[in-house]
Amino acid sequence: MTAVGFAGMGRMGVSMARNILRAGNELTVWNRTRERCLPLEQEGARVVDTPAALAQGVDVLVTMVADAAAAEAVLLGPDGALAALRPGAIVLEMSTIGPLAVRALAAAAAERGSHLLDAPVSGSTALAEAAGLTTMVGGDPGAFERARPVLAAMTKAQFYLGGSGAGATMKLAVNAIIALTNEAVAEALVLAESAGVGRADAYAVLAASAIASPFVQYKQAAFLDPDSSPVGFTTALMQKDLELALALAREHGVSMPATAAANEVLTLARRLGYGEGDLVRVADALRLDPTAESVELH
Amino acid sequence: MTAVGFAGMGRMGVSMARNILRAGNELTVWNRTRERCLPLEQEGARVVDTPAALAQGVDVLVTMVADAAAAEAVLLGPDGALAALRPGAIVLEMSTIGPLAVRALAAAAAERGSHLLDAPVSGSTALAEAAGLTTMVGGDPGAFERARPVLAAMTKAQFYLGGSGAGATMKLAVNAIIALTNEAVAEALVLAESAGVGRADAYAVLAASAIASPFVQYKQAAFLDPDSSPVGFTTALMQKDLELALALAREHGVSMPATAAANEVLTLARRLGYGEGDLVRVADALRLDPTAESVELH
Amino acid sequence: MTAVGFAGMGRMGVSMARNILRAGNELTVWNRTRERCLPLEQEGARVVDTPAALAQGVDVLVTMVADAAAAEAVLLGPDGALAALRPGAIVLEMSTIGPLAVRALAAAAAERGSHLLDAPVSGSTALAEAAGLTTMVGGDPGAFERARPVLAAMTKAQFYLGGSGAGATMKLAVNAIIALTNEAVAEALVLAESAGVGRADAYAVLAASAIASPFVQYKQAAFLDPDSSPVGFTTALMQKDLELALALAREHGVSMPATAAANEVLTLARRLGYGEGDLVRVADALRLDPTAESVELH
Amino acid sequence: MTAVGFAGMGRMGVSMARNILRAGNELTVWNRTRERCLPLEQEGARVVDTPAALAQGVDVLVTMVADAAAAEAVLLGPDGALAALRPGAIVLEMSTIGPLAVRALAAAAAERGSHLLDAPVSGSTALAEAAGLTTMVGGDPGAFERARPVLAAMTKAQFYLGGSGAGATMKLAVNAIIALTNEAVAEALVLAESAGVGRADAYAVLAASAIASPFVQYKQAAFLDPDSSPVGFTTALMQKDLELALALAREHGVSMPATAAANEVLTLARRLGYGEGDLVRVADALRLDPTAESVELH
Repeated sequence: MTAVGFAGMGRMGVSMARNILRAGNELTVWNRTRERCLPLEQEGARVVDTPAALAQGVDVLVTMVADAAAAEAVLLGPDGALAALRPGAIVLEMSTIGPLAVRALAAAAAERGSHLLDAPVSGSTALAEAAGLTTMVGGDPGAFERARPVLAAMTKAQFYLGGSGAGATMKLAVNAIIALTNEAVAEALVLAESAGVGRADAYAVLAASAIASPFVQYKQAAFLDPDSSPVGFTTALMQKDLELALALAREHGVSMPATAAANEVLTLARRLGYGEGDLVRVADALRLDPTAESVELH
Repeated sequence: MTAVGFAGMGRMGVSMARNILRAGNELTVWNRTRERCLPLEQEGARVVDTPAALAQGVDVLVTMVADAAAAEAVLLGPDGALAALRPGAIVLEMSTIGPLAVRALAAAAAERGSHLLDAPVSGSTALAEAAGLTTMVGGDPGAFERARPVLAAMTKAQFYLGGSGAGATMKLAVNAIIALTNEAVAEALVLAESAGVGRADAYAVLAASAIASPFVQYKQAAFLDPDSSPVGFTTALMQKDLELALALAREHGVSMPATAAANEVLTLARRLGYGEGDLVRVADALRLDPTAESVELH
Repeated sequence: MTAVGFAGMGRMGVSMARNILRAGNELTVWNRTRERCLPLEQEGARVVDTPAALAQGVDVLVTMVADAAAAEAVLLGPDGALAALRPGAIVLEMSTIGPLAVRALAAAAAERGSHLLDAPVSGSTALAEAAGLTTMVGGDPGAFERARPVLAAMTKAQFYLGGSGAGATMKLAVNAIIALTNEAVAEALVLAESAGVGRADAYAVLAASAIASPFVQYKQAAFLDPDSSPVGFTTALMQKDLELALALAREHGVSMPATAAANEVLTLARRLGYGEGDLVRVADALRLDPTAESVELH
Repeated sequence: MTAVGFAGMGRMGVSMARNILRAGNELTVWNRTRERCLPLEQEGARVVDTPAALAQGVDVLVTMVADAAAAEAVLLGPDGALAALRPGAIVLEMSTIGPLAVRALAAAAAERGSHLLDAPVSGSTALAEAAGLTTMVGGDPGAFERARPVLAAMTKAQFYLGGSGAGATMKLAVNAIIALTNEAVAEALVLAESAGVGRADAYAVLAASAIASPFVQYKQAAFLDPDSSPVGFTTALMQKDLELALALAREHGVSMPATAAANEVLTLARRLGYGEGDLVRVADALRLDPTAESVELH
């Protein structure tokens, strides 16, 4: 049994923290707005009011927040967690914030005698519930081994990839492929339907083809009828991740022309009013169909 | 039992024709160079010297050749097959030649009283051997029903998609997605490795992720070590298909910016000497590594 | 004085032919629809009914038609011009038809003992009237020298660029730059106005900057108010030329990623109903403003 | 006569400051490394050791530094200029730092009772010497009128474009066009030469065509022989500006697909070792010629 603190009760965070609790660990949680902690409080977690209180006495501290600024606030802000952690404690930074931000936080943790691992996850909210996520980990290998049971409570696969930032780097690479796969399906689907093949018929072929990834399979309903499907990952959020990926690429002199092209289509989708829409809305952006429900110019 | 004529004994064609024979049909074969017919002759097929001789007396004629010019030569050239077909016979045009060319051939067939279906296939040579291909079919629905047993001898799934050209259209859409998926993997993999994640580690994450399509799985060895892997679909052949796809897109007013970007990277790969290399060579083109074995400037 | 035949009385062709006449040459003209020849008939040109009649007795034959098919029809079709030309006569092919088509026609001319030069022109209808065009010439240098006085009657600059097809090649390169310059202005202008700079203020800066080419200067009114400006070169025509340029680039292994991206925006513009609109409409395509006058979905 | 302080003695800054002096103003200068102030000291400028000393008693303070961080250090750092300025003084921020950074500095200036105008310039070092630059100005219109004589001493044209950030915005738009024009010339030139037209012949046509901007004219020598030409604006610096432009575009929902494509070619050029090379090196990146002098892999 490990004493774990968890900061960030978003859609993913709640499910991930619950799985830590269910695995028999001692769980303390914190969220900027306290009410989101209530479900887990009923299930046995302790709720605290500050990141500093969260950090006291835990072996492992998990952060799963919106962006680099939020992670920095939790760890280094007023009443921040880092200063309150005991020496040797491990921070699992599981948000998607890019290797640059992660390395700065890891250095700050090291100064205070703790280890920060970047351990972002890949997978949907459904996979988060089912502890079916994948995590990509960077940082000290010994700290990874010690934190692994906590990671294993939340994820089905844990890939250790190298020094600090390696996990954050790989997460950006994975999301770049997802964005481009989504764009590929959108372009080909709009081509097929514009050239006279029915949308459902066309998708059925894709779902039986060599490119039928899990992503292509579970996006079928959304691509066939975007107006009636629940919104998953939004175009605006994906664009934030692509910007991190493209900035990382430029830093390392890597040309990503198709990713950059897909990024501009995300902008087009946002201009058409699909910023808070699901990724599949890029197909609507290519269709430019002004009768679609959510089109409203930026 | 159906009398089938098969034109085109390339790598895919030989396996497809063999499966027709194995399913208990009567098979006649023809190839521009006769020697490629010998293996099937030993297995019981009849070999003839001209497309016209191939067409005589068959119920179904299959063409599986390199491009539109070759298909036209087989069907409409000197000693061509169409003029020798009996009324009501069905032509299965299974090459990847685009909807425009297919419709012209279908019209020529209709004038002579036969039906031409476009029925290009998706899948590798391994799938062709195992009768595991997928076919996308356009043309007369009654003809499709009559020809279906022959198609089913070669493929595990047969999608009827609409009038003449619908199958050819869908094939181009599928190949566009394959090209862009390949580009997506290449860009993300080169990003990950340039930013310090090991290539094999990075690919292992991809192979466990939401975008792990069959294509991503079976290209693993080739992406990890392109110099030691057998060449599958080449960059030059894929570029031919992308040009057909992009031309079709322009005809229908469909913008395909990421596909167009991927197409320019294929050109870059060809310029670097990878024209006859496997599709995965686009990763080498992004790496621009002059020490790689096959780099030789155009 | 030279005996000149001129095929193609389009907007450019009429002005070019008139300048040949004004320079004191003997002019015969032909057009598919005879009535477009009447203005020049009144000014002293002889009008004939077939390309063959046009070719009889002339020293120089000029073709200025819509595309490669039209050029082929004039030269090699029924009653075609090539067969009727006297040995040693020179054909000036001044349409924009790409080097492949030009070389085929040049070979056909050579078989019949005449020289065909590709000599496409760059410039507007206003420059055509004022004999202010530029011509880019490929083919036999001796033939170029002999034909130069006729070219000089229509153009202010004659660039001899090499063997057959060199002029056609350069014309495609020039048009690719024009398309991309137009796209550059559109992207930057929409950026500036979306970020709060007035459109006219922004354009005034461009018109005073290092990229203030003649093109940027004379497109000012059209970019500022596309709805009230006469249509010059259309998006659909530019896309035809870009396709020739991109095909030539692939043939020679040249990657043109920004040109390819601009080409997809032309498709977007056509989808939005701007196919017959001026090139500057690409800015409206980026604005995606559904209140603009001519927006009407494809 | 106006008392002017000038921070930043780079290649552009020295010439701009000299022109202020020559116009009869009283000039004080500061630079991080004092020795770069010596030439102007000999010509009559006073040299000081800190931005605070520079600010004391001046009517107008000019900053012309490398990036936003440097501008912030000069104005708000230890011994910073803003705190030492007298109320009502005007700051001319003439670096290229983007509207976001400029607005933050303008707000800081306003809090201290002074006006900050963004007034970046467009033009080469030669134009800076000749007082032939163009400036794009954002901020308070009254402050612009009062500062205009100082701006006029350095520039031949002063465009007032709106509130704070308007000048910075327009500068990014102008640089995006320059980057894309450069890419357009590179793509078309490499196409022409790969297809058999001589490079110098091809450029001569461009220099006589509708896209022959001043930029195209003065880059002729560099495009024809990049190895022997002095380096002007580098690919790395242009990429910094393009990143600011693309970030601004995303903020305002503007899709810039061709600019994004050109940006990826700049990355390619940097990967090939041309980061400190002139912009025209993108043509070498498209050529991928390993025999060129400066190619050295990243």
